[in-house]
Amino acid sequence: MLEFEILATDGAARRGVIRTAHGVLETPGFFAVATRAALKGLDPAAARRAGIRALICNSYHLAVQPGPEVVAAAGGLHRFMAWEGVLATDSGGFQVFSLRHGQVADELKGRRRLPLPETGEEAVVTVDEEGAEFRSAIDGSRHRFTPEGNVALQRALGADLLFCLDECTPFHVPEAYTRAAMERNLRWARRCLQTFQELGMGARQALYGIVHGGVYPDLRRASATAIAAMGFDGFGIGDCLGETKQDWYRVVELVCPLLPPDRPRHLLGVGEPDDLVEGVLRGIDTFDCAMPTRIARHGQALVHGRPRFRLDLTSARRRGEDRPIETGCPCSACTRFGRAYLQHLFRARELLAVALVAEHNLAFTARLLARVREAISAGRLAELRREVTCAGR
Amino acid sequence: MLEFEILATDGAARRGVIRTAHGVLETPGFFAVATRAALKGLDPAAARRAGIRALICNSYHLAVQPGPEVVAAAGGLHRFMAWEGVLATDSGGFQVFSLRHGQVADELKGRRRLPLPETGEEAVVTVDEEGAEFRSAIDGSRHRFTPEGNVALQRALGADLLFCLDECTPFHVPEAYTRAAMERNLRWARRCLQTFQELGMGARQALYGIVHGGVYPDLRRASATAIAAMGFDGFGIGDCLGETKQDWYRVVELVCPLLPPDRPRHLLGVGEPDDLVEGVLRGIDTFDCAMPTRIARHGQALVHGRPRFRLDLTSARRRGEDRPIETGCPCSACTRFGRAYLQHLFRARELLAVALVAEHNLAFTARLLARVREAISAGRLAELRREVTCAGR
Repeated sequence: MLEFEILATDGAARRGVIRTAHGVLETPGFFAVATRAALKGLDPAAARRAGIRALICNSYHLAVQPGPEVVAAAGGLHRFMAWEGVLATDSGGFQVFSLRHGQVADELKGRRRLPLPETGEEAVVTVDEEGAEFRSAIDGSRHRFTPEGNVALQRALGADLLFCLDECTPFHVPEAYTRAAMERNLRWARRCLQTFQELGMGARQALYGIVHGGVYPDLRRASATAIAAMGFDGFGIGDCLGETKQDWYRVVELVCPLLPPDRPRHLLGVGEPDDLVEGVLRGIDTFDCAMPTRIARHGQALVHGRPRFRLDLTSARRRGEDRPIETGCPCSACTRFGRAYLQHLFRARELLAVALVAEHNLAFTARLLARVREAISAGRLAELRREVTCAGR
Repeated sequence: MLEFEILATDGAARRGVIRTAHGVLETPGFFAVATRAALKGLDPAAARRAGIRALICNSYHLAVQPGPEVVAAAGGLHRFMAWEGVLATDSGGFQVFSLRHGQVADELKGRRRLPLPETGEEAVVTVDEEGAEFRSAIDGSRHRFTPEGNVALQRALGADLLFCLDECTPFHVPEAYTRAAMERNLRWARRCLQTFQELGMGARQALYGIVHGGVYPDLRRASATAIAAMGFDGFGIGDCLGETKQDWYRVVELVCPLLPPDRPRHLLGVGEPDDLVEGVLRGIDTFDCAMPTRIARHGQALVHGRPRFRLDLTSARRRGEDRPIETGCPCSACTRFGRAYLQHLFRARELLAVALVAEHNLAFTARLLARVREAISAGRLAELRREVTCAGR
């Protein structure tokens, strides 16, 4: 069950609302990442207070620990983690194939290139037409993921939005490999959708197909066209998005016009402030990204007016700064605490710091998207883009 | 500034209220320990929600990091850490002398006996009539604590209640050492009080004297009588309380009748559920203890009906338990999450678990003391003692 209503447009950008069995997400909107059914040190009530209305968990991690039977016994993931709002589960394909390809995330961001696993040594992940088999990094146990099994797993978890199982290819692989993976992902997508329909899951849940094809325009076009024709509730743009921002801009510009205009489009793993605006300008409705909570653990707060939107709260410069992270920010950290206190907490290794900065970073992201939605309604998103881009330099 | 009003009594137990410049604490009451101006991973707003109305910080730790000038520049400790309630600072004597005597806390609890520092090696702490000098464990810097300097430090921090600088002796030292330390502590207490009065601090702050004398009745009697005569706002019972519960019961039974009946009495470092009741029965008004938040970090929740009031949330047994830590507990963890979820968080090393269990443990402690206060008013504290003691076996 997923309703998507478009309320306003500004060029390719759309303002709308996603309604699910458990809540409503205004779009352009953001899914905060709760991989293991928790936002690290942040209480879900604090995330809600920060304006977050949607979370995304990882079915791979939850399959290994605590196991779907524990979540199902608790009445499903919403109740298990006390989240009253929109909830998505990723298939875990990204994580499974990270084991195969090395740190895919690093490569997506162009930080380094890792070799494919050498033969001779037992692979952590093996993949064939049927599915993928991998060894758990937690306990060494063997797990087999198939499209059918993964949909059933995500059914047991009970989130509102599910993503199809897919293989994510890293940046450096040849076109032929990317093509073969893309084509297999299409076959897996059909099997996911068939299972979803056979199990009658549509009454309470929704299934997103994912567009693949790496940085190769022909492959992206073929994948988007085929996925668009399958009748999913929504669409993710996944796989390797390239090395630079220009790379993924091109992918999104190419893919969005090929997707059904009345269905939501999700860009997987993107969440930098300027990237949110750039994605929306190209037709993206929703995003997910671990960055706001991850950088909080390293003492980095999102702010306007500094390089890459980052304020380093561990710096000794903060020691004399009585003002909040961002003046005027209504979040629970900024309305109560000064930078000097947060710097003290990081220096004293007090965990409270991480939760406070995570809450601010999520509030920053939620507020930015609220401004994006207002700008779409007012027809001035291009203007907002200039403001935001300048504010991150 | 400290007002103490006694509302009801039941034997030696008193129900009352402490009023300070920043808030009110119903007594018998509890100070949660925020050593470095933070309750580890717990938001102060969550502690307040759990029923906590008073915190105690450590002036030694805050002198080293972030330094009193940073706290003063932020407008004092209440504003620095966003605590709107009663706030105390300990002198840090306990911590300073832990460096000298080894892990005093271990010895107070009778876990092991450590030798006094050998001569020949440079001592971490040196103590003389003037004060104590120590090397910071954080940055190796040298700090000198004198009674006068410590009161001025606690003035800069700006808490409501201050404790006098004192040397805490460990359990195993000879009576002669304990006597010499007790007598010096009396001289230091006079110097603290004189500084407090000279600086005109009484308009906004209150100073507690501390009773010493270890496990030696004559020394306890001498210390209590002398301290009681000095005109402090309230009284702490500190120093080594012995090896067993019976040891400290005897100390408290001996000391309380010697203190002014119209002033509050604080038992330092005690907070086990049964100990709270036993202390109140002997005339104690307030307590502080790091245990509720410390054991949360190890996955231990306070509950009735289990040995030592402990439920191990890391145990695999919790995996199938959908019910909350304690059924009927109104805390934010128990009303939202089941034991299986908390077990999952500890196993997945998700920090959220620590904050949730800390909030429960503080709520448990606050609720127990609310029952104690009701029992005093109803004249049935002995009955409550039986209930609580049985519930911890």
